[in-house]
Amino acid sequence: MAKQHARVLKGFRDYPPADMMLRQRLMEIFRTVFEQHGYEPIDTPALEYLKVLTGKAGENEKLMYHFADHGGRDVGLRYDLTVPLARFVAMHENEIVLPFKRYHIAPVWRAEKPQRGRYREFYQCDADIVGSASMLADAESISVMADAIHAVGLPQAVILINHRRVLEALALLAGVDATHAGGIFRAIDKLDKIGTDGVRKDLIATGITERSAGEILSLVSQQGSTRELLATAKTRLADVDGGPEAVEELISLVHHLDGLGVHRNSWKIDFSLARGIDYYTGPVCEARVESPKVGSVAGAGRYDGLIGNFLGRQVPATGMSLGFERILEVVREHELVGTPATPADVFVAYLEDTAAEASRITRQLRQEGLRVDQSILDNRGLGAQLKYADRKGITLAVIPGSQELDRGEVSVKNLQSGSQSAIQLGILAEELRSRLGL
Amino acid sequence: MAKQHARVLKGFRDYPPADMMLRQRLMEIFRTVFEQHGYEPIDTPALEYLKVLTGKAGENEKLMYHFADHGGRDVGLRYDLTVPLARFVAMHENEIVLPFKRYHIAPVWRAEKPQRGRYREFYQCDADIVGSASMLADAESISVMADAIHAVGLPQAVILINHRRVLEALALLAGVDATHAGGIFRAIDKLDKIGTDGVRKDLIATGITERSAGEILSLVSQQGSTRELLATAKTRLADVDGGPEAVEELISLVHHLDGLGVHRNSWKIDFSLARGIDYYTGPVCEARVESPKVGSVAGAGRYDGLIGNFLGRQVPATGMSLGFERILEVVREHELVGTPATPADVFVAYLEDTAAEASRITRQLRQEGLRVDQSILDNRGLGAQLKYADRKGITLAVIPGSQELDRGEVSVKNLQSGSQSAIQLGILAEELRSRLGL
Repeated sequence: MAKQHARVLKGFRDYPPADMMLRQRLMEIFRTVFEQHGYEPIDTPALEYLKVLTGKAGENEKLMYHFADHGGRDVGLRYDLTVPLARFVAMHENEIVLPFKRYHIAPVWRAEKPQRGRYREFYQCDADIVGSASMLADAESISVMADAIHAVGLPQAVILINHRRVLEALALLAGVDATHAGGIFRAIDKLDKIGTDGVRKDLIATGITERSAGEILSLVSQQGSTRELLATAKTRLADVDGGPEAVEELISLVHHLDGLGVHRNSWKIDFSLARGIDYYTGPVCEARVESPKVGSVAGAGRYDGLIGNFLGRQVPATGMSLGFERILEVVREHELVGTPATPADVFVAYLEDTAAEASRITRQLRQEGLRVDQSILDNRGLGAQLKYADRKGITLAVIPGSQELDRGEVSVKNLQSGSQSAIQLGILAEELRSRLGL
Repeated sequence: MAKQHARVLKGFRDYPPADMMLRQRLMEIFRTVFEQHGYEPIDTPALEYLKVLTGKAGENEKLMYHFADHGGRDVGLRYDLTVPLARFVAMHENEIVLPFKRYHIAPVWRAEKPQRGRYREFYQCDADIVGSASMLADAESISVMADAIHAVGLPQAVILINHRRVLEALALLAGVDATHAGGIFRAIDKLDKIGTDGVRKDLIATGITERSAGEILSLVSQQGSTRELLATAKTRLADVDGGPEAVEELISLVHHLDGLGVHRNSWKIDFSLARGIDYYTGPVCEARVESPKVGSVAGAGRYDGLIGNFLGRQVPATGMSLGFERILEVVREHELVGTPATPADVFVAYLEDTAAEASRITRQLRQEGLRVDQSILDNRGLGAQLKYADRKGITLAVIPGSQELDRGEVSVKNLQSGSQSAIQLGILAEELRSRLGL
């Protein structure tokens, strides 16, 4: 028989059962957290008009899988969930109620060079609020992020909070307007990597004076309580265009975070946080896990300029995105969320002379909510069947021997310990449940 | 502000929240049924090497979205979940245990002309058993299909059962071998649409004699009990190559269905069932809903020749596929599965002077497992906020008025009936739960 070559594209992966069960469990946890916060689920097509995905500026086209379809239309696989959200809001304007709180857990595709931990197909996990300029919405974003991170037991995560317009005010202080401030933001963002001296050098290299660099550094590297940091920013930026409003927003945000009970030790103000994505217009956040040192696991921010692209008017929006694949890696490595090796709780063995009884027992256990793998190995001996169940990761096997059945019993074998005992049929489901800790 | 054109590709759809909640609920129901039967979840990439998808014969290429990627590789979007399963089994041969029972719920893409109820992107929902030739496996397929259909409350579904080799034996009776019997199968399959006279005409048009057509028709149109039908087939096909074995398999299958408690009135033998897909090699089944007359909602069958393509040896396999989109339509139209309009159970209103208390109440209710949409409409009056909650479909609103709070109470308003009452904070979660019927 000629053999066809089996392979997957580089940067793409299969999810075998153990992987898939953990992925499904994480998604379930995140869905629960999102819905507890009143976010509603949506989904959008994997394939969209390329023009919709790239926008007016034709951005990110290089990152996209795109091609001409059978009708000659230029189409592409979605590369994020934010552009589809903007398109969705415009097309469903009359059905949805603003502010619209939606979550979206779905794969995206990027034609990037695959690296360790980076794939060409991966899941994004976003929760956004469209149509509210209130800092209550930004606080809700951070609250849902903190709860999601907490729900998967991620140890020692801290959410850094800054405001894009605080950064812009800092650049203005140095005489650089927002549209030319990219170099300054990038320099500031490296503070925890290259230290104050390194940042000072980088800042000066952007063309600003040493004095301006010093002014910027004294704020972004300041240590202190939230109250102290905000007070300093308020003073320093008092006369800079947009500065006071940005600081007021942060003060309001902090106030709402306290109200929502987001623990003070789960977040902190960090004026050096820039976040790469350039569509942010307000508060920006990043969740970092310090121990184990896995870095950023989630991001958030306000982006008032993007959602309205398809509506022709500005629509405020803020949201957060969990780094699903990254979190999954950490959860797996540190065994933070337990999932079984296989869905089945119990294996029911096949014996020629009691086949009908085995099926009846299987049916009963399933009706009582147990997950039962009934043996289909009618051509194999009992030993081979039990080995099969053990290799699949099932702990308990029911063996319906005819002698036991005559006494109204079956044997139950623990495939890990090897111990075996007879159980009355009347209490079988209950007994199995108790042994499984269900 | 220049407006970008918002549109989706023909044959593709958004899933707004109400749709999405029903889709998620159905998937959850199907996952539960599959796992109760011991099937394990997997997922595979959306994008594969085109050669993997089309196989040696280059089949279905016309149906596929395919293109050259950035590296010049010919790639395509998967058009079913069966070819990826075959590829998966070959690549993970050493990790999985045969027989391998997997389920896969995922979107597939087909570049077909979209029609009412047919889309270019749609979900498939498959459960297969790879590596078992036993009729126990085919019975398990039908059992899981029957349970899944039952679990979504589909009324009056009946599963028709036939055997591909019974049909081949019938063709042989008429002197036509299996590889040329397509016309005969297609004629037989139309029995319930065009009746015996129509089928007779179509059969004769394939070139067989009137007598052969009569012989075929007398079996496929026969009415009677399962026992009678099988007995007749056994007699008629006794001397035809492969006939007796096929009938024996059906007898064995029926025996196992009885054992597994699949109700006799939920299935019947129907020798006129052909099923289109030509890779079937054993039992074939189709679930039809008679009232309302929505037709086929699921299919099943044995296909021993396909999975081994990537292994270079034959691997027996059998499985079933739920028509997810079709079932969803029926479930929606007949309101068989209830889902709320929005995930949130409760809306907590915002009042300037009690904002901190509102957040505290929100936090408490969420901790007690309630799904709470806290108002982010801090710039709107109470009336507008309650209207927002009502439009979103939330029934109960908590109004934290300062006078009530002084008495340790809040107002709870039913947004449907308009009734309002004061509730003690200490019993708020309990009271809300009881009013929501949770």
